[in-house]
Amino acid sequence: MPLLRARVDAARANAAALGLDTFLVSSLVHLRYLFGLTATAGLAVLHREGATLVIDHRYRRVAEEAGEAHPGVRVCLVPVGDSYEATVARVVGELAPSAVGIEADHLSVARAAALRRQPAWPAVETRDTTGLLERLRLVKDPWELSRLREAGGRLAEVAACILPKVSMGCTERQVAWEIDQALHAAGFEKPAFDTIVASGPESARPHHRASTRAIDDGDLVVVDFGGVLDGYAVDMTRTVAVGAVAAEPRRWRRAVFEAQQAAMRVVAPGVLPSVVDATARNCLAASGLAEFFVHSAGHGLGLDVHEKPTIGPRGDHDGPLAPGMVFTVEPGVYVPGVGGVRIEDDVVVTTTGVECLTGAPQPFESHEL
Amino acid sequence: MPLLRARVDAARANAAALGLDTFLVSSLVHLRYLFGLTATAGLAVLHREGATLVIDHRYRRVAEEAGEAHPGVRVCLVPVGDSYEATVARVVGELAPSAVGIEADHLSVARAAALRRQPAWPAVETRDTTGLLERLRLVKDPWELSRLREAGGRLAEVAACILPKVSMGCTERQVAWEIDQALHAAGFEKPAFDTIVASGPESARPHHRASTRAIDDGDLVVVDFGGVLDGYAVDMTRTVAVGAVAAEPRRWRRAVFEAQQAAMRVVAPGVLPSVVDATARNCLAASGLAEFFVHSAGHGLGLDVHEKPTIGPRGDHDGPLAPGMVFTVEPGVYVPGVGGVRIEDDVVVTTTGVECLTGAPQPFESHEL
Repeated sequence: MPLLRARVDAARANAAALGLDTFLVSSLVHLRYLFGLTATAGLAVLHREGATLVIDHRYRRVAEEAGEAHPGVRVCLVPVGDSYEATVARVVGELAPSAVGIEADHLSVARAAALRRQPAWPAVETRDTTGLLERLRLVKDPWELSRLREAGGRLAEVAACILPKVSMGCTERQVAWEIDQALHAAGFEKPAFDTIVASGPESARPHHRASTRAIDDGDLVVVDFGGVLDGYAVDMTRTVAVGAVAAEPRRWRRAVFEAQQAAMRVVAPGVLPSVVDATARNCLAASGLAEFFVHSAGHGLGLDVHEKPTIGPRGDHDGPLAPGMVFTVEPGVYVPGVGGVRIEDDVVVTTTGVECLTGAPQPFESHEL
Repeated sequence: MPLLRARVDAARANAAALGLDTFLVSSLVHLRYLFGLTATAGLAVLHREGATLVIDHRYRRVAEEAGEAHPGVRVCLVPVGDSYEATVARVVGELAPSAVGIEADHLSVARAAALRRQPAWPAVETRDTTGLLERLRLVKDPWELSRLREAGGRLAEVAACILPKVSMGCTERQVAWEIDQALHAAGFEKPAFDTIVASGPESARPHHRASTRAIDDGDLVVVDFGGVLDGYAVDMTRTVAVGAVAAEPRRWRRAVFEAQQAAMRVVAPGVLPSVVDATARNCLAASGLAEFFVHSAGHGLGLDVHEKPTIGPRGDHDGPLAPGMVFTVEPGVYVPGVGGVRIEDDVVVTTTGVECLTGAPQPFESHEL
């Protein structure tokens, strides 16, 4: 089970280190991370005595259960007909804080203004705590790693089962639906995002979605899919060559595979994320393909399918890689109007290097499905 | 096809009426509404000459296609390694506006601060345009209505096919998966939200999700599901009585059904949303169940599965109902620890009254599945 209490205490300690004894949590993902609460609305206030969950009646029981499981967590219901802002303002006001931390990246300008308009809201400074909880989430605990490892293994099995079925005449949507069914059969709660199947010229669009296009002879087909297990997302991409693919697209595919393997190999504690990105980028540059790699080399995985760390040219604000960080490595090449390739695996940084969660590194030939 | 150009022009006209010739659109749903663009990132600036879409390279082609389809829409790519904020600030700065409209409810405090820090951001007043696009979306155009009508019809067929299968021994998750498969077979792009199957005591939780609990003799089972068709969401709930359900839960179910039918009957142009809510609430009060109805009576449907209008006690800020508004009517009763009932249909306000999108009003007996 996740050590929720330890997370709340760590968040409070990190806020205290910023001189904050009161900290408003407005990200719903953070409510799940701290309290195990899955809800479409809700706020929490971390304070000297523990935490107060502010929730509406729809989530009363789950919030109460979260409270019962955590000594020090109190549940405050939004009265029917009242607003979240008024209720939170009363909770914060009663704490008489000297300053209030807010998650500026998860709080809208409108809600911030609504809070300030509440009579109960204290006339004190608000201080931005952006990144405080994201930095905690950056390094996964043993329970999280066990979930991500299990999810990665299952996703690799889904790939092994589905990729051989990608063939001429299938529509992109049919393939996507086969994948969604296989994700369900593998025990995933749901797809981690809308499954991407991008064939032929559509493969040149990194975020194309599955259409009614039928896969044709000579197509590259980018298949990008993920699943959620116990709330944690994993994500994988393979590019399938269907029928008689021309020499140039085959060259792109080999170059992307080599770039991806090279980038995975440099992952280790102490290495900067930008170095992982640059490794992939330099490999592709050596093949004359740098201009077609139009996104970052990877993104963190966890309760969000895109979270910290960013594995990109500008991804070093969270410092070097550390054991327990989990992210994708997914270089790609996209030649507008012609076609594209992406290959993506999920890795965890270990104390000595890297572990691939989505299957052992494979020889290139095994991708020649 | 949706009349995208008309929407952009209407948004610009409404902003101009507020004295704004420059308006930053930061809601991704609004990018879809205005430009047909489905993306996980992006911003738009509406201005005197038309609109500028600011997008990163992943969405280059879709944005360019959106631009080609709209005279007056320019696409500005975020340079690789640069930020959205810097790029948007340059676009806005070059317009030399006297003030800039922002969607305060779709712009984070952090992003607003980042924009202000950009050297190119103009030193002018920002004015909150919250609700401007939501009010446009409130009344559906003929194309949107055709999509919602088609989607509602298909959802009713899914219900007719699936509800008879809800029976003793099935787990909640099995039922949810049957529904998700039926949604796919009916041509929906995806479920509109995580399908809810809440049985026995779990039915007392309005937002319970499907668990591994097996449905038991005497259970009420709340089945709440929706689908997305051409981007538009529909949403429906039935409460199935399995086996020998006790007299009291049967009484709740009849009361909720009557409250729902009564609330649907009062829907007409000129009626306040709060009156629809009060109609359901008063019906349940007459049965001594008012305290167990812990949410609003409905919510708008469209590109979001929860949008305006709010059909609740405080739902009148957008004025009375008007032809073309589409929303759910879904009273419920939730007795903590015991069980609950919810019945939900989707309606459109017509020029003379109301049309149910999810099937003709049915006699209560037809819910006795």
